[in-house]
Amino acid sequence: MTSTQPQGVSMSASEPNLDWLISVDDHILEPANLWVDRVPRADRDRAPHIEVDDKGMDAWVYDGKRFPSSGLSAVAGKSKEEFSPKSLSYSEMRPGCYDAKARLEDMDRAGILASLCFPTVTRFCGQLFMEASDREFGLVCLRAYNDWMIEEWCAAAPGRYIPLVLIPMWDPALAVTELERCAGMGATTFAFSENPAPLGLPTIHDAGGYWDPVMAAANDLEMVVSMHVGSSSTVPQIAPDAPFLANLAWGATRTSGAMLSWLFSGMFQRYPKLKIALSEGEIGWMPYFLERAEQVLDKQRHWVKKGMKFGEHEVSRNVDLDTLDVRATFRDHIYGCFIEDAHGIASIAELGADNIMCETDYPHSDSTWPNCITVVRELIGHLPPRTQYKILRGNAERLYRFTPAEPPVLAGV
Amino acid sequence: MTSTQPQGVSMSASEPNLDWLISVDDHILEPANLWVDRVPRADRDRAPHIEVDDKGMDAWVYDGKRFPSSGLSAVAGKSKEEFSPKSLSYSEMRPGCYDAKARLEDMDRAGILASLCFPTVTRFCGQLFMEASDREFGLVCLRAYNDWMIEEWCAAAPGRYIPLVLIPMWDPALAVTELERCAGMGATTFAFSENPAPLGLPTIHDAGGYWDPVMAAANDLEMVVSMHVGSSSTVPQIAPDAPFLANLAWGATRTSGAMLSWLFSGMFQRYPKLKIALSEGEIGWMPYFLERAEQVLDKQRHWVKKGMKFGEHEVSRNVDLDTLDVRATFRDHIYGCFIEDAHGIASIAELGADNIMCETDYPHSDSTWPNCITVVRELIGHLPPRTQYKILRGNAERLYRFTPAEPPVLAGV
Repeated sequence: MTSTQPQGVSMSASEPNLDWLISVDDHILEPANLWVDRVPRADRDRAPHIEVDDKGMDAWVYDGKRFPSSGLSAVAGKSKEEFSPKSLSYSEMRPGCYDAKARLEDMDRAGILASLCFPTVTRFCGQLFMEASDREFGLVCLRAYNDWMIEEWCAAAPGRYIPLVLIPMWDPALAVTELERCAGMGATTFAFSENPAPLGLPTIHDAGGYWDPVMAAANDLEMVVSMHVGSSSTVPQIAPDAPFLANLAWGATRTSGAMLSWLFSGMFQRYPKLKIALSEGEIGWMPYFLERAEQVLDKQRHWVKKGMKFGEHEVSRNVDLDTLDVRATFRDHIYGCFIEDAHGIASIAELGADNIMCETDYPHSDSTWPNCITVVRELIGHLPPRTQYKILRGNAERLYRFTPAEPPVLAGV
Repeated sequence: MTSTQPQGVSMSASEPNLDWLISVDDHILEPANLWVDRVPRADRDRAPHIEVDDKGMDAWVYDGKRFPSSGLSAVAGKSKEEFSPKSLSYSEMRPGCYDAKARLEDMDRAGILASLCFPTVTRFCGQLFMEASDREFGLVCLRAYNDWMIEEWCAAAPGRYIPLVLIPMWDPALAVTELERCAGMGATTFAFSENPAPLGLPTIHDAGGYWDPVMAAANDLEMVVSMHVGSSSTVPQIAPDAPFLANLAWGATRTSGAMLSWLFSGMFQRYPKLKIALSEGEIGWMPYFLERAEQVLDKQRHWVKKGMKFGEHEVSRNVDLDTLDVRATFRDHIYGCFIEDAHGIASIAELGADNIMCETDYPHSDSTWPNCITVVRELIGHLPPRTQYKILRGNAERLYRFTPAEPPVLAGV
């Protein structure tokens, strides 16, 4: 069915292979030996490691704290009636949660050709190591994660995993060094925070240019800035006693804030090759907020440009507002992904087909596993095959400069 | 062109009049004599009144504080290059800002058949009187506003203004009395807060049922709960130093939070005739958040129902999650409006045509005045005429039980 084309796009002229997708957002429950196998022998006890309590329950232990695994982080194989946030041990998880080879079976079954995975115990952009009392050793552990990601997780099945690496968020110079090191090992993307402010870090608008060296390096190395929803370590609350499901449904409000924040940041003007991926942020809210951004820019920029104060809020001026083109900036720099976002797909004429990717969120509770390819195909099946191919795989291959393995031949198919 | 139908809908069988709209969100700059003419003579000096400073600048004075008018609240007639948040005096405003008869000319020019207006110095849901040191006198002033709204503003042009009244948010029993009084005078809607928590008030989820008497009365009296964006007295900030235009473009995130909050509140199950209007909240974000609400309800309700804790957040259970129908609840209870939301209109198949109204935001800086009817007609012109009519007028007439005046015959038209 497939033939290799010059740019590594597996697609015959007439009939693209639409049986497989690339998921740009899945999750790893880190295996127990990840750090103890990689840090110096003398440091094994203080590296993140698993301890079992007297009730037989696993938890990660690091820097004097225990981190049990949430049941909602490893639901693959369970029915929604069985979902529970209660802690669970690795022995209760499906092996695909933590084992790269075992996961291949789960990927094959769900039509997942390749997968980009975010970490769990380190949190989405390595907050664990930033918050550690010994950041020097935190960096040792962070680098061990990156080595493991590339040398073990991804190497376990070439062409099936896209490496995502961490940076020491607390030190831009060290972050640049780590980006360069990882790029040299083949990484094309790193985890960043959708909003560094709640982490106690300067934002991308920092007047002192805290993040500029990092973004300059990302630009030069063509490393995609991957921001997972929740990577600000916040769960948005509509009100202190708002129903939990209302807050949960409101989750993408963090991602919409991140998109607007970047659109008006000036980062893309300074670093024209920079690209950001809004992971698990969904896409259905994008058309409205892009249109609204255009409207406020059109109507309100004139007085904003004068540097006036609005109440007590001083107006920031981070970008040339007269030349800012919201749609072009989105098209050239911002990528979204979806699990089963029918409204986002219905809006594809407004969003364009080149900035949308799919994800499966395996093994979290939003996942459609094991029906991933079926769910996506039902959503996009009315689109032209080449557009479907872009969404299923093509856009991810281009963004992450990734050539996937040939799709496996499955027994009985 | 028009003929009167049994339900007061001006529409011939074949050709509805699409030359006029009803705006469900405009703004009044209160006229100087509003309170001084209506409170007891002895209280005139302490009622809200206008004082001119030594530079000749107007400001409202009440309860020992000065409240100048923001230039952005009265831009009608100015080009966007002239917009400014600097304070301005009433003499610098277009008379339509504060004079009901003068506004008719501006409405006629823009195709606005009727208008529902929010107050300014009282703030969107009467926060001024709630924050006053003497709430008893605050209630006197609040009732004076309501009397003025009905007896002067709306009476100045019957069938051209929909009365919106205020309630004493600080006392539900008094609020019920005021709702009953105003309903008796013909009001069909009152201003409420999109989120009472930042105002220091219990939310609609309050375990003690703080708002239940008010919502029970609104249900019985069929008074629409009108919540203007910003009626929580908050401007959302993505980050402390986020660009102002990014925050401004993010504004509807308050309204999306309000919609989700109400959807999961149980209020509509307890009060089945209750209807809410999300004023100046726009509509383009609604399809995504409705779909997302359905998804989290489907996948996550099972463990949420068990009353589990999620981190430190206790899960609220305010509604029967097994029977909650997100789409039906939206259809039966929630109304949105738009100024020029192309994405919202493009999504009308998902939203339905019965819950969408239009607004012109006169005389604020988001307004399309004087091109209001032209802008809306361009957005909705591809829809069937009867659908256009619903959006332009029909839905507002039904929701607010309002029969507008026959459209005026304009000279030269």
